[in-house]
Amino acid sequence: MLKPSRRSDVEPFLAMDVMSDAMEREAAGARVVHMEVGQPGAPAPAPVMAAARAALDDGRIGYTEARGLSSLRHRIAAHYQAAYGIDVPERRIMVTTGSSAGFNLAFLGAFNPGDRIALPAPGYPAYRNILKVLGLEAVEIEVSADTRWVLTPELLARAHAEKPIQGLLVASPANPTGTMMQPDALKALVEAARDMGIVFVSDEIYHGLVYEGRADCALQYDDNAIVINSFSKYYCMTGWRIGWMIVPEPLIRPFERISQSLYISAPSLSQRAALAAFDATEELEAIKAGYARNRALLLARMPALGFDELLPVDGAFYVYASVRRFTNDSMDFARRMLAEAGVAATPGADFDHARGHNYMRFSFAGTEADMTDALDRLGGWLK
Amino acid sequence: MLKPSRRSDVEPFLAMDVMSDAMEREAAGARVVHMEVGQPGAPAPAPVMAAARAALDDGRIGYTEARGLSSLRHRIAAHYQAAYGIDVPERRIMVTTGSSAGFNLAFLGAFNPGDRIALPAPGYPAYRNILKVLGLEAVEIEVSADTRWVLTPELLARAHAEKPIQGLLVASPANPTGTMMQPDALKALVEAARDMGIVFVSDEIYHGLVYEGRADCALQYDDNAIVINSFSKYYCMTGWRIGWMIVPEPLIRPFERISQSLYISAPSLSQRAALAAFDATEELEAIKAGYARNRALLLARMPALGFDELLPVDGAFYVYASVRRFTNDSMDFARRMLAEAGVAATPGADFDHARGHNYMRFSFAGTEADMTDALDRLGGWLK
Repeated sequence: MLKPSRRSDVEPFLAMDVMSDAMEREAAGARVVHMEVGQPGAPAPAPVMAAARAALDDGRIGYTEARGLSSLRHRIAAHYQAAYGIDVPERRIMVTTGSSAGFNLAFLGAFNPGDRIALPAPGYPAYRNILKVLGLEAVEIEVSADTRWVLTPELLARAHAEKPIQGLLVASPANPTGTMMQPDALKALVEAARDMGIVFVSDEIYHGLVYEGRADCALQYDDNAIVINSFSKYYCMTGWRIGWMIVPEPLIRPFERISQSLYISAPSLSQRAALAAFDATEELEAIKAGYARNRALLLARMPALGFDELLPVDGAFYVYASVRRFTNDSMDFARRMLAEAGVAATPGADFDHARGHNYMRFSFAGTEADMTDALDRLGGWLK
Repeated sequence: MLKPSRRSDVEPFLAMDVMSDAMEREAAGARVVHMEVGQPGAPAPAPVMAAARAALDDGRIGYTEARGLSSLRHRIAAHYQAAYGIDVPERRIMVTTGSSAGFNLAFLGAFNPGDRIALPAPGYPAYRNILKVLGLEAVEIEVSADTRWVLTPELLARAHAEKPIQGLLVASPANPTGTMMQPDALKALVEAARDMGIVFVSDEIYHGLVYEGRADCALQYDDNAIVINSFSKYYCMTGWRIGWMIVPEPLIRPFERISQSLYISAPSLSQRAALAAFDATEELEAIKAGYARNRALLLARMPALGFDELLPVDGAFYVYASVRRFTNDSMDFARRMLAEAGVAATPGADFDHARGHNYMRFSFAGTEADMTDALDRLGGWLK
């Protein structure tokens, strides 16, 4: 009768629990520095806001085609030419309700129940949860300093040899680590997956937010990769729920059919607003320069506070730091840090079952003043 | 390797094909009366637009809690008190990305792969498709004039006896028929399902658009029903992708967990705008009065044109009409009607595999002028 399905037994996000706890404290009058949230502190850029207002002035905000507005898909195609020098035909571009919908469509449309999907650990917990809910098996492959915290062809081949793998999901720059696959490493992994018959799903949501090196698009190395992206991070449009994916030719129609039934269309006000996001480069680069300053500040001051093992922060807006020196229970550490120092951050257990108890993720998407405040607070607290 | 999953093999919407065909003809300069689209012709009401503008002025449009803004859930709870006289605690209310997300959550969270979900035919095709994609079996139960085109406890019991059924999905008023379960009929069916141990999923998206009788909420008869609703129809907010569901106590946390991973949150600009939808009753009732005039016009004039078998149009904004008199191929009829009369409507095959070739769905969500024009065009064409 009325009981939850077996597949609904997924993990909650600890980050969300920390966030509600932080919000309760704030409501009670406490000052909290937010380093737990994976979203930009800045609002969407001015041209996006203006486009949203213009859409409201136009009147009806109706459904669009399931694939998204043709004008937006056209503009995304131009972005691929400008950013990566690759031609992506508009028919392969699908506008989605955030990258969340992109993952859902990719997993439903390209994989059969029971298929095994590899992903590096640490990694974004929603991946595992979506896979479980959709009847797929997450095969977590631990990465470490040995491979500069990224997956390699060797690690993938070893897992595949143990038991065959049908898909591979990689984010680069990654969440929670901010670590990126440099072009050669990406090329090698994409080609290795292709040679093993493993479908490559590339989460490129943090592209645009790169401080060291160059983020290549997986399509540069395999035209059959499924690429997922979003306006949430670089373009500062989280709550608008708008993203896109690049779909290999054989999957275009299946993905479109699923999308018609599962989503009808992405929010159309957000689609029209997102069209203007590509005209906001100056504003967005200024925001990114702020993240770069925050990053420099954290990298300069955290080691002296005792966070002496930081993963490479190539991109995104996260520092993933070992807290081994202080605790073996990062959830408890997070609670105390919030209660005693007024700094909210996310325990590593969200991202890595085996080793997360020794790590914390700090987001530096806030203001420079917040970063300084957080560092001062942590300095006082950890003494 | 790279091929579509088996579960992605769902049917496309013929309605969408008719719509693109119609749009192409319009782009080429032809006049087309749109009766194929299931969405209001009116924009969202003024208070909704004003709330959206205010949210833009506020700045950042960030994520909300997965369950949705507490202010909106609070307002929805008040709506249940006002509209149905029932108390729904806020914790049972979940804001969703349109009713589409509600169905997805209900099917994933309350049913296990292989479970059988009954639904009346004719019915909304996305139901079948979502069920298939999520590994559930759609058990279509044909309804007819014998039961005034609604499902009865007897029909349900018969299907359940043949092979056990775990869930039942009923929309009332229904799409494509506009036919509604009157309170006694709804009560009997909800209670019968409960007694058979079948989870009742109630699609109440057309509530508010009722011309004959009264639409009761399934919760009035079973507190464990899963209720799905949306701001798309009565509230004229289709492209905003915003809806809600009422979740039975034991399913609250599982649904929330799935939602965190699958959606993060519903679009937050839409959430803030939707809050104002409940203050727009006068404007919305005026729009509904327009539908009522359109409905009266169609019911008065269609029979004389040869559409002499219309299903009961209790609510929504559809007339589902037999075209047996003209054709045995409603898809062909739809194509010719569009090409020769400039009237777009949806072939019944979308809604009913067995009998849809003899039916067409006409939406009367457009203007009165459009309705008159369509009737004149059809009159000329059918002669």
